[in-house]
Amino acid sequence: MKLITFEGIEGVGKSTQINLSKEWLESKGHSVKLLREPGSTKFGEKIREILLSKDSNISSNTELLLMFAARAQHLHQKILPALEAGVWVISDRFTDATYAYQSGGRGVPVEKVALLESFVQGELRPDLTLLLDAPIEVGMARAKSRGKLDRFEEEQAEFFNKVRDNYLSRAKVEAQRFKIIDATQSLESVQVDIAEQLKNTF
Amino acid sequence: MKLITFEGIEGVGKSTQINLSKEWLESKGHSVKLLREPGSTKFGEKIREILLSKDSNISSNTELLLMFAARAQHLHQKILPALEAGVWVISDRFTDATYAYQSGGRGVPVEKVALLESFVQGELRPDLTLLLDAPIEVGMARAKSRGKLDRFEEEQAEFFNKVRDNYLSRAKVEAQRFKIIDATQSLESVQVDIAEQLKNTF
Repeated sequence: MKLITFEGIEGVGKSTQINLSKEWLESKGHSVKLLREPGSTKFGEKIREILLSKDSNISSNTELLLMFAARAQHLHQKILPALEAGVWVISDRFTDATYAYQSGGRGVPVEKVALLESFVQGELRPDLTLLLDAPIEVGMARAKSRGKLDRFEEEQAEFFNKVRDNYLSRAKVEAQRFKIIDATQSLESVQVDIAEQLKNTF
Repeated sequence: MKLITFEGIEGVGKSTQINLSKEWLESKGHSVKLLREPGSTKFGEKIREILLSKDSNISSNTELLLMFAARAQHLHQKILPALEAGVWVISDRFTDATYAYQSGGRGVPVEKVALLESFVQGELRPDLTLLLDAPIEVGMARAKSRGKLDRFEEEQAEFFNKVRDNYLSRAKVEAQRFKIIDATQSLESVQVDIAEQLKNTF
């Protein structure tokens, strides 16, 4: 069993590709569980609400600790039991998103993220991470067409560019695990690229 | 301005003594703000609810991260602004409670607590900590007389003894800051002992 994560800014088409990847892996005989961060547990949903609410005056330390609290619970309650039961897990975002948004986007020192990553995960890292990448204009337009923007989405284009750059530079450093997929392509071409990465890795 | 914290297991009379200490400090001309952990902020109250609920299957890492998330927010939103405005702060529990309950009581490695303490507080420590100490039978009986026991209170006497021992041994190590008050005495005698410590320290 493997842990696969999907990363990328809002609107790059993660949900669609996650569902297609699940079908693809199931067609190869694997049991697959879909999860998302910071949700997936009742507890994580509560945290998700706090993090997405507009009226909260949350400090960056608080935000980071909350995200890792949700992650610790997610691991404890969902990810680890699934992996131990022989199920493959696909998570819609994981710790790379914390690096991208909190460190890349908000300027939280990368050491703080790394410290909490070790605290919560020990040695556990995803077996494969698929970064759906597109210029931020593409993602923002798609997110906008779905309705109201949340707190993160309302941030400036500058912020999203920093997030994207952080994703891209970390993907290049960890090229073995972290694969960049061109999300400006047609849905079908993105799907083909992802299937290719799944085939090559597993 | 100073940060004073009160510690001790449930039922040792912290609330009463906190109010009396506030009056005493005010009689000396100080502005005093009372706070409590993990509550005091809207956000902290939400976390308090999660932590005290019985149906939650919360991992020890999650619990620890949540407590420090509430503390980070408490510092950001209440404690630091008060101290910066020249107000003395009395907090009903602070990080020593995390050492006592999570490390002493539940066996979470002390290094984990210390790591998050530094993460959240940097160099900040209370100027004075008053440990209201009594054998656990005293505290548990008083807590029981107030009605239903919450999750922590329902734990075994063995657990509370570990919590108490952790408080006592840490108070002895940090004797300059951390004062042990015999809470088996009459309310008035406890009050006199506390006033004595306040006079000696400030």
